[in-house]
Amino acid sequence: MAMKRFQELSASFSEYFNTRHFPVQPAGLYDAASYMLEAGGKRVRPVLCLMGSELFGDLRNDAWKTAAAIELFHNFTLIHDDIMDKAPLRRGNATVHARYNESSALLAGDVMLLKAYEYLNDTDPVHAGMLVRQMNEVGRQVCEGQQLDMDFEQSAAVTLSSYLNMIGLKTAVLLAASLRMGALITGASESDQLHLYAFGKNLGMSFQVQDDWLDAFGDPATFGKKAGGDIVQNKKTFLLVKALESAGPVQKEEILRLLEYSGEDKVSRMIALFTDCAVDREAEAACARYFDQALSELGQIAVPPAKKLALEELAAHLLGRTR
Amino acid sequence: MAMKRFQELSASFSEYFNTRHFPVQPAGLYDAASYMLEAGGKRVRPVLCLMGSELFGDLRNDAWKTAAAIELFHNFTLIHDDIMDKAPLRRGNATVHARYNESSALLAGDVMLLKAYEYLNDTDPVHAGMLVRQMNEVGRQVCEGQQLDMDFEQSAAVTLSSYLNMIGLKTAVLLAASLRMGALITGASESDQLHLYAFGKNLGMSFQVQDDWLDAFGDPATFGKKAGGDIVQNKKTFLLVKALESAGPVQKEEILRLLEYSGEDKVSRMIALFTDCAVDREAEAACARYFDQALSELGQIAVPPAKKLALEELAAHLLGRTR
Repeated sequence: MAMKRFQELSASFSEYFNTRHFPVQPAGLYDAASYMLEAGGKRVRPVLCLMGSELFGDLRNDAWKTAAAIELFHNFTLIHDDIMDKAPLRRGNATVHARYNESSALLAGDVMLLKAYEYLNDTDPVHAGMLVRQMNEVGRQVCEGQQLDMDFEQSAAVTLSSYLNMIGLKTAVLLAASLRMGALITGASESDQLHLYAFGKNLGMSFQVQDDWLDAFGDPATFGKKAGGDIVQNKKTFLLVKALESAGPVQKEEILRLLEYSGEDKVSRMIALFTDCAVDREAEAACARYFDQALSELGQIAVPPAKKLALEELAAHLLGRTR
Repeated sequence: MAMKRFQELSASFSEYFNTRHFPVQPAGLYDAASYMLEAGGKRVRPVLCLMGSELFGDLRNDAWKTAAAIELFHNFTLIHDDIMDKAPLRRGNATVHARYNESSALLAGDVMLLKAYEYLNDTDPVHAGMLVRQMNEVGRQVCEGQQLDMDFEQSAAVTLSSYLNMIGLKTAVLLAASLRMGALITGASESDQLHLYAFGKNLGMSFQVQDDWLDAFGDPATFGKKAGGDIVQNKKTFLLVKALESAGPVQKEEILRLLEYSGEDKVSRMIALFTDCAVDREAEAACARYFDQALSELGQIAVPPAKKLALEELAAHLLGRTR
């Protein structure tokens, strides 16, 4: 039973979204854009928009349009991020710039953002302006998050609080805004919108910290990625940032030496250091704190508890906390 | 006297626009964006928006906001185009990606587009939706024009009509839409909006064809660029496209041979071929046709002729037809 509503909405949205969003010509541009959209994905953000909308009333046509706008926006950010990160693969397929070329990928991202605004602007004028405003804000934040993420790659000392700020901007605010935009369409009060936004933001933070933890401590069989990928790449994660911040001088020196090292035992030695510094438990605690805060925000929304079940289930599922 | 209103509005707009459009942090992102805006430019598009607005009434605050949105949009396209074209210089300064890096330039373009929507969405709801719709449409068209321009670089055979379609999308529609967006704010009728749009589109076409002609036949002293730059780069221009289309087999073979050639006399020999094929006169005729059509469209707008003087003067000035 768990996750039934998510799966239903995800399937319905995929059907709704499985349409030609762009003209045919020029093919160099629109084939690249369509290629990205056809690659699919879990559609978490548009489903959050639909669930946020359902919390306060029946799903209207505008909720679907807004969900489509959000998915287009998300894909715009992915295409441009992949160019910046020079990533060859996404979801197991060649990235847009790898499959076509950087210029077409850049333009495909641009038209996707423009199309997102087109869908939003095509909703009832009663809320179109508010939806565009939310998109403007989250768009700016996601760009800031990406810039900070790139800055951190070049920076030796990143504080935990600036790291948390970065993942908030890069990932969590879009989940939060997706929920809020949906809620806005069915006329949720400002206060309920803010609680729902905070639910999404905290859920996103919890998920991202968990993702960092899983890379080092998760079971590769369930996690689906090779363990220690972040460690091999010296990626700034909650674990590394917190370890560098809280380690004693000897441990810190060892971590810094490991960052320069690329032997076969790099991953296992870094994991041992993380455990020594207890940053694994710090991450688990942070993850749980964000998760609890998310549920507390959801609890404060003025709708009957039964209406909140789908979001509670989704939250528990995303954080691997089956109930 | 000529061009007085353009200069006044350009100066006023520069003052209005000379403000901090972005936060300070992250500096890697917003310094790049501000660097681009501080480089200035003639501000033709925002002034067209203001003039389009003035044609039908007094300048309101929303006309200035819309002019700012248009200038931000234009700079977004320039930043991304420069990345795609790997251009080292713009307006005599290093391009954004050359001065910073490609990733920050890409993101700076993105936030500039987002900011453009923010300004538009901040106007009176009576026209905000219509303004956003115009921006969506012109945005898509400009992206299509850029893709076609890149396609043409790789393509041996480009027809004149597809070339004209490309410059229309890449350049002329934004001039047209700038005028129309201004007019929309002061409540111009749909019919007047369309005539004004057509005025701008034809003016843009005329200007672009003239630009192609000037590269080969203009006086470098007045034109401000070294003559024959397009020829050196084998750039598809009105002259080259039309020459390849209309030349006899012997001339055509000679043109194709010249495209492979890079000797010192490449420019003079290509210019001689253009004259032989009479494409210089074809370009002049096309330029005049577009210009006349522009004035005819302006003539059909239902406001007193005195109101149109500023736009007539600007048109004559842009096309070097002092009156």
